[in-house]
Formats: sequence, C-alpha cells, structure tokens
Amino acid sequence: MNKTLPIHNTAQQMAARQRDISVSEFFLKNRHLLGFDSPAKAILITIKEAVDNALDACEDAGILPEIWVEISYQVGDVYRIAVEDNGPGILEAQLARIFGKLLYGSKFHKLSQSRGQQGIGISAAGMYAQLTTGKPLHVISQVQGESMATELLVSIDTTKNRPELHKKTKLNWHRPHGTRVEAQIEGHYPKGAHSIEMYLKQTAIANPHVTFHFKNLHGEQLIFQRSRCEIPVSPVEIKPHPHGIELGRLIQMLNNTDCHSLLQFLENEFSRVGRKTAQAIIQQANESLSERSYPKRIAHAQASALYRSIKTVPVSVPRTDCLAPIGEQQLAEGMRKEIDADFYVVTTRPPAVYRGNPFQIEIGIAYGRPSRSELALDERGHIHQKKSHHHNKAESMVPTEEATQLLRFANRVPLLYGQAGCAISKAVTNTNWHTYGLAQNKGTLPSAPMIILVHVASVWVPFTSEAKEAIAAYDEIIKEIKLGLQECGRKLAVELHKKMRLKNEYNKRVHIEKYLPHIGIALQEILSLSDDQRKHTVAQLDDVFQQTRKI
Amino acid sequence: MNKTLPIHNTAQQMAARQRDISVSEFFLKNRHLLGFDSPAKAILITIKEAVDNALDACEDAGILPEIWVEISYQVGDVYRIAVEDNGPGILEAQLARIFGKLLYGSKFHKLSQSRGQQGIGISAAGMYAQLTTGKPLHVISQVQGESMATELLVSIDTTKNRPELHKKTKLNWHRPHGTRVEAQIEGHYPKGAHSIEMYLKQTAIANPHVTFHFKNLHGEQLIFQRSRCEIPVSPVEIKPHPHGIELGRLIQMLNNTDCHSLLQFLENEFSRVGRKTAQAIIQQANESLSERSYPKRIAHAQASALYRSIKTVPVSVPRTDCLAPIGEQQLAEGMRKEIDADFYVVTTRPPAVYRGNPFQIEIGIAYGRPSRSELALDERGHIHQKKSHHHNKAESMVPTEEATQLLRFANRVPLLYGQAGCAISKAVTNTNWHTYGLAQNKGTLPSAPMIILVHVASVWVPFTSEAKEAIAAYDEIIKEIKLGLQECGRKLAVELHKKMRLKNEYNKRVHIEKYLPHIGIALQEILSLSDDQRKHTVAQLDDVFQQTRKI
Repeated sequence: MNKTLPIHNTAQQMAARQRDISVSEFFLKNRHLLGFDSPAKAILITIKEAVDNALDACEDAGILPEIWVEISYQVGDVYRIAVEDNGPGILEAQLARIFGKLLYGSKFHKLSQSRGQQGIGISAAGMYAQLTTGKPLHVISQVQGESMATELLVSIDTTKNRPELHKKTKLNWHRPHGTRVEAQIEGHYPKGAHSIEMYLKQTAIANPHVTFHFKNLHGEQLIFQRSRCEIPVSPVEIKPHPHGIELGRLIQMLNNTDCHSLLQFLENEFSRVGRKTAQAIIQQANESLSERSYPKRIAHAQASALYRSIKTVPVSVPRTDCLAPIGEQQLAEGMRKEIDADFYVVTTRPPAVYRGNPFQIEIGIAYGRPSRSELALDERGHIHQKKSHHHNKAESMVPTEEATQLLRFANRVPLLYGQAGCAISKAVTNTNWHTYGLAQNKGTLPSAPMIILVHVASVWVPFTSEAKEAIAAYDEIIKEIKLGLQECGRKLAVELHKKMRLKNEYNKRVHIEKYLPHIGIALQEILSLSDDQRKHTVAQLDDVFQQTRKI
Repeated sequence: MNKTLPIHNTAQQMAARQRDISVSEFFLKNRHLLGFDSPAKAILITIKEAVDNALDACEDAGILPEIWVEISYQVGDVYRIAVEDNGPGILEAQLARIFGKLLYGSKFHKLSQSRGQQGIGISAAGMYAQLTTGKPLHVISQVQGESMATELLVSIDTTKNRPELHKKTKLNWHRPHGTRVEAQIEGHYPKGAHSIEMYLKQTAIANPHVTFHFKNLHGEQLIFQRSRCEIPVSPVEIKPHPHGIELGRLIQMLNNTDCHSLLQFLENEFSRVGRKTAQAIIQQANESLSERSYPKRIAHAQASALYRSIKTVPVSVPRTDCLAPIGEQQLAEGMRKEIDADFYVVTTRPPAVYRGNPFQIEIGIAYGRPSRSELALDERGHIHQKKSHHHNKAESMVPTEEATQLLRFANRVPLLYGQAGCAISKAVTNTNWHTYGLAQNKGTLPSAPMIILVHVASVWVPFTSEAKEAIAAYDEIIKEIKLGLQECGRKLAVELHKKMRLKNEYNKRVHIEKYLPHIGIALQEILSLSDDQRKHTVAQLDDVFQQTRKI
C-alpha cells in the first residue's frame, strides 16, 4: 500500500547532492562542539587549550612548567591572547600541522594519561580566530639545543583540513627553549566563576608544580607560584588490556600487526598477557588456531572464537602506572592554598577500569565559610572562638550561599562548563548526603557551605563532546566517583560531628565562664576565703570542668 | 628561572610520535560522542539513524512514508536490526559511501530543515556493528524505475575512513522502490522510557503522516497508523543570511564563489540581499571596493570593511519557508492520539534566528493523569464526573508521580537521551511555573502530573554532540523556548482555573443533588403537592441553580 504523491526529488537528483564533508568544515559549522558557542567561552577555551599543550609538553620533557598568559584588548570585540611556556619546543617540520590541522597529534594513539588527547584543541582555537577576525595564529618555537627559533603565521584551509602558511622565518628568541602561541579572536572578557583567574586558580590546585604569570586586561601581573618543585611521576604508556578489547578492534589489530605469529601477537600487543596466558587463550579458542597462526590470515570465525576465549581466560587487572593522580597530600595542600575553609577532607580511590581503560578518582571537600568565625582548641585544650580572617584567596572561591559548589577536573584540567550533563555531577547529586548530616533536595547538590572537588584521571577520558567540558556517564566511572564521595562523606561526617560537639562544649564553657566567678564569690563568703584563695579555687574548678569535658 | 630536571623526552622524540588521526578512528575511540556508550542505547540509535534517513528520503521525494522496523535476537548479546522504507531508493554509485564512510552526505552543505545533517549517523551504526560483531551492514536498495535492486555488504576501513565492500549483487526485490538496511550489533534490548515502542510513539506524535510497522523481539507486530495523509510542505533550501555570517566565512565565500563581481556575489550568495541592499553594502564599505570588484582578489582589509558594512546595512529577516514546523493543529492531534490526559494546550512561536539560522519553537502540554477520574460538562451544561478510562496508549507515556515529564524533539526527531545538558531542559527549569499555579523547586522541572513537549525546528540544529541527543544552549534558542513555555503556561493557567472552578462547582452540585430531594419532600408536605408536582418543582429548582452557576 505505497501511497505515492507526485515525486519531488528523484534518487538521481538526491545522489547528485551527496558530497564529502571535511572535518574542518564540519567543526567550523558545529563550533559549539568544540566549545566555541559563546564569546566569553571562546577566550577561556583558547587559553585552556594552549595551557594544556604547554603542561603536557613540559611534563613529557621533564621540565618544571612555567607559563605566561597574556590578554590584551584590540578593537571592537577583538582580544589578543598569548600563551608562552618553557617547554622543549616543537620541531619546525611539525609546527604547521600541529597548529593548522584538526585531528593531528601525538596523544591519540597512545594509552597514557595526558591533558590533550584528540589532536583538535589548539587548531580549533586557530580556526575560531580565523572565523571571527580572519587572522592566522602567530607561533614562535625554540627547540632546546637549536640555535634559532622558528616563527610562523598559520591558518587552516578548512575545505581540505590542512595548514595554510602565511609566513615562516627564523629568529633569535629570548628563551632557550619553549613555545609561544598568539591568537586574535572575537570574544567577551570572561568574568566571575568563569574568569581567567578562576581557571588558573583551579589549574594551580590540581597542578601544584606549575607557576603561572598572568597579565590581565589592565596590564596587571598576577603570579600563581608553585608550591611543589617535583614534577609528577611521568605516566607510563600502556598496551590495551585484553578484557577491554572489542571484536572489531581485535580484527583491526590482527590486520595491522607486524607480529608473525598469534602467540607473539598476544604477548606483544596486549597489556598483562604473558606466554602462559597467551597459550591458554589460543588453546581455549580452538577453531584450528595455533600459536604459529599468521595474524593477518585469521578468518572472521576464528577471530570471533579468539575474542570469546580472550574474554574468559583470566588476566591480571590493567597496570596503573599509566595514571598520575594528584595524590591525597598534594590535593589537600592545593586546596588549603587556594580555598579558605574550616576544614578539608580528601580521598584517593584505588584505580579502576572502564572499557579496558584504567582510571582513578580523587575527591576533596572543603567545608565552611571563611567569613564565619569558627571554634578551635587552644594549646591547653580549651575551646575558644577563632577570629574571622579574610584572605585574598577566599574572596571568590567559597560559595556565598548555603549551596555546594562543585569543582570538576579531568587529568588535572579544570572542567569549566557543561556541569549539568557531566558524570561527576550525576554522581554527586545521586549520592545520599543526608547520611552524612547534610540537607539535600532530591536530585540536586547537597545544601551546605562547601566545595566538592572531583578529579578523574584516565588514559582516555570519555568526554561528552570535543570541547572536553563534561565526562560521559559510563556506569563504572559513576560508581567509582560515588564510592569516593561516600568515603569522603564519612570523613566529613566525623569532622561535622566533632564540630558539633565542639559547639556544644563551647556553649557549656561559655556558661561555666559566666557563672564560675559568681560561684567563687559565694564560696568566698561561705568559707571566708581570701581573694587569692578564691581565684585559686575558681581556677581549680575550671580545670576540673575542662578535664571532665576531655574524658 | 627555568628550573630544569633531566630531560625525559626531547622535542625530536615527541615529533616522531605526531600522526594523522582518521575521522573514523577518532569516532571509533570516542564512540560515546556518537551515542554508542551503552548497549541499550546502541540498539535504539541504530534504529533511529535508519528511520531518520528513511523519513528524510521519503519526504524529499514526496512519498508518504511507510517504515518497517524489525529486531530479532541472535546469540550472546547480539541482535539483528532491520529498517526498511518505501523511499525513492539510493543510486548504486552512492550506496557504499553513504553506509561506509563518515562525514559523507547531502544535507551538510544545504540550509534547510532535515533530520540528518552531519553525514555520520548510519555509517556510525555500521562502524559499531563492525566493532562489536565484526559483521558488515547488509543493504538493499531499489531505485524507482530501475529494473533490479542492488544488494551490498559494506563496512568501514577505519584507518582511511572509506567503504570496504564485501559483496555487491543485483537482485529482484519485493518493493518497487525503497531501501532496507540490516545491522548485527551487540546490545541490550531497550526497555521502559527508552524502549523502541516509546521511540516510535514519540516519532509518531511529531510525524502524524508516517506509518510504522514494528516487529518486536517476540515476533509480535505493532502498527502505528498515520493520522494524516498529507506530507508536510517540503522545506525550501536557503542561502545564508548576511547578518548571521562571520568574517572568516565571508572570506571563504569570496574565495570560493563563481561570481565575477562583488555586486553579483552579494546578490547571489546571500538570502534577502537584492540589488539595492548590495549597492548600499558596497558603498558603505568604501575601502576602494566597487560593484565590479573581483571577489577572489579582495584583500583582507577590504573583506573586513565589507564585513562591517554587511553588519550595519539593514536586511530583511531570514526567510522561514526553509522550516517545516509540525503545526499547532497537527501537534495537538498527535498528542491526543498518543497521550491520554485531561486537557492539552499547544503553542507555535513565530520563527526566530540564531547565528543567521532560522529556527522555530513549538510547545505542547498534556495535563492530568489518565487513571484519575475527571470532571466534565454534559450537553445540558451540567457538570458530571467522567468515568476513568484506561487506554492502551496511556500506560507508558503519562507520568505516574507528580513529576513533569519532558519530551524533547529536534526537526521532528525525539531526543531520547542527554536531557540534563539540553537547552530545552534549561529553558523549562528556568521558567517560573509558580506564575501558572504549579509547584516547583528552584532549578528543577515543575511538579505536576503533566507532559511538556518541546519541538525545535531549524535549518541547522546545534547539537551538543554528534550523537544529536541534546541542543546547545544558544541564548536566542533558550529565550524563544522560554517565550513559548510562557505562552503555553498562560493557556495552562486558564485551563487549570477552569478546572478548579469546575471542581468547586461540582462540590456545590453534589450538595445540591444531595439536599434537593429533601427540600422537595419538605415542600410536598408544606404545599400538599402531588408526587409529579414535587418532581417537577425539584427539576425546576435544579435548573435554576444550574443557570445561576453558568452566569
């Protein structure tokens, strides 16, 4: 019953319109996928992508990172942004493609924790500059040990996704090694929770080994000095874990390997597969597969059998030295340095795995408002009220209302947008905070004057878009974050309980302090004590009460 | 002060690792970007992408769409999915690339409303099939008027992003024209709010001209019959609007145009620019530009001046015949057909523009629970309590708790996932529903037994990811959705007020009905009436009360 109206377009006419779409064209039209959907975000993302690259390069080369960020106003809505680092520099042969081609990079095919992973970021910023101001990126790079630096003006030929060079020269630069990238883009100067200062502050929390120099719109210099002088242990590159592999990927690997035997293939191309495990896999697969089967000649049915066998033979859990968590101590230090609060609790979870990719969760909670006076014990064990102290650092970070603020990080990079759709938010709102003595409306963040910091470190962070703003809600990841939050929640509850007890004791103490002198006077009259005797008795009584409290 | 530790990796070593990333490899690794991050989603997305293509092709060819969807269980976690349509068919020369290459399609470079837009969807499903079961897509297509159909087994060579053909033959097919695509993928059978039935039901609401035949896992046939026999008016393709253009895009267009003069370029390549407007733009731009300037030779400074001029010269708002909204009447019909509720309110907003792209918002609200009895006026104008009626259609759609359910649509396609990060959700939660008499916690959906349906139609829907699950939060779009919600909210408030009045009146009426017979008996005794007189008097009194109520 095909009811057909007069044909508008024939299959032939439709075919004539079919075309290839270049990846640059695609992202130019879909620039919100890269995060460039608002003028304020555009500025922040450009800085973030350049800083991510700088940090990755420095750490990879074993250099303590020192980064200079500058922003200045041009005309109209145009700003000039420059990011300069003391990294190892980039070879002249690679420069144009790194800055002028999407999907080009060194981190995509590698399994190890890094900030960049897609080979899109900085070229996308260049594409946005080109789109809004028509100006190419201005790049200078000095490779350590070379005599001169390379200077480049480069943009993207979007219909072909390849770099277009406008200028390339050699020059003497002021830095022995490093890279500087400068972009002119249309944007709005970001303020408040999404300001450049806030981004740098959050980055400093997760990277205590970095020094930032920031020159703002008014030419003022702000320095975020490193608190640690050790570079985080360099994460090791790993092979894929056999239990995380999918059939299609296995077939692809069989076709692409240089190994000449199945045994060698299993041993060399996978993590945690030794000779014995490899032999067990082959034996269990059967399907006339042998240790000497030539990988490229393995048929589909054989590959399927191999795949099923791989899934059932026990293999040790993935190596986790591919991860570089911040560490409980460093995280607590970073939070203390940048966030003013009554107290801090921190948890680092053991590594876990999703789709064969190791990942690790770290949680920190900073509780209490800095503007509120707090109670403390003095050296004698007496409770007293601490003076409220206003730090410069406290002003912007701590929530002003009784609402929890969430700071999200992935591979030490702060996630500044897209909170609503993020696995981290989902885990926090799905945790029952009543258990830890906090108020919470169903499906929302708990209501408390606190900051929750969540860090997801992984060899491959599954972002919900190329803008790398939010983490996809894989069950394994949500589960681990919730476990971390619960651990931290329990520590929080203990502290809150202490605080509550301190508060109760303090109230009693205030009463004691108020009435003790009167009791002293009464005793003096009844027992005819001298003034000194009275004072001595009161002091003794006070000590007795304090002792009782401590028991 | 560059504090340098021993170098781990030199710039040279880093350079050696830089590589091209194929777009297929990129999405294979980032398959959650395409929506393939859970086994249940994988099945639904595969069906959705095939259905989207079928609907676009049918409408483009002026054919009333009839679509067959089948799912059957294979082994392990493997399901076989088939989608067949009565569309115009696909030419043999295009088949392999449409199903075996990412970023290939007819809709990307065109400005007109369609479901597909990226040239990714169905090939991505094929890539997922290949990844999880190693099986290629099985495609049959019969072009209208040709003697035989083409049959194809095709997968993607992911390292090169190009189709890999496993089989190609001609065969006699049962359909005069149409396309069938079959995939074998690993997945979980989707249930509940994300079931295939719910997806088809929602699609039917937004596409009342489509008939679906669905054969489920148990071999049962479910038919969603079309309620309208007109195909929606085919949206017209438009040129970009000058006020939405960005400088970089203008430069690109100047370089790529076939026009020989600036005047011709402005007139031909833009929407809403006639000769007079073009002349005004050129004159105001100055910078030694003339009507006869050769577009390809226009320098950067000149293009900038032209750009500034374009932004200031008045141009009519974009054409809106590129949009095909569902329409108030059709939307209300669709909702009545598939959602059982007490009452319905619907609003279609006038078209608006973001980044030069026309878009249009439609809102529908279905209020009340089907299981609850409701009040109605009969033909005499009397209120009575309607019997509660349980439809089959009601069972799954209407919220069972006092929580609003949100149905989101983009270009007539239901958005099934990613609600948290969607502009539609943001607009709904940021609307103050107290104004319309509903309860609402701050920043959440209103608490009421209702369904809110929001449809965004645009020549280019800015999705937050390639999975097309959620709409990016462009200010203009959020603003328009909120205006639509407010309009609909006011209509809702009127209905709720009526309902409240009806309820009050009904309570009075119950009282009247209860006491009137007693009054009748009293009157009968006092006035010595006959039974007939009593009955007559009671009926008259009843009418008088009813009249009073109506005034």
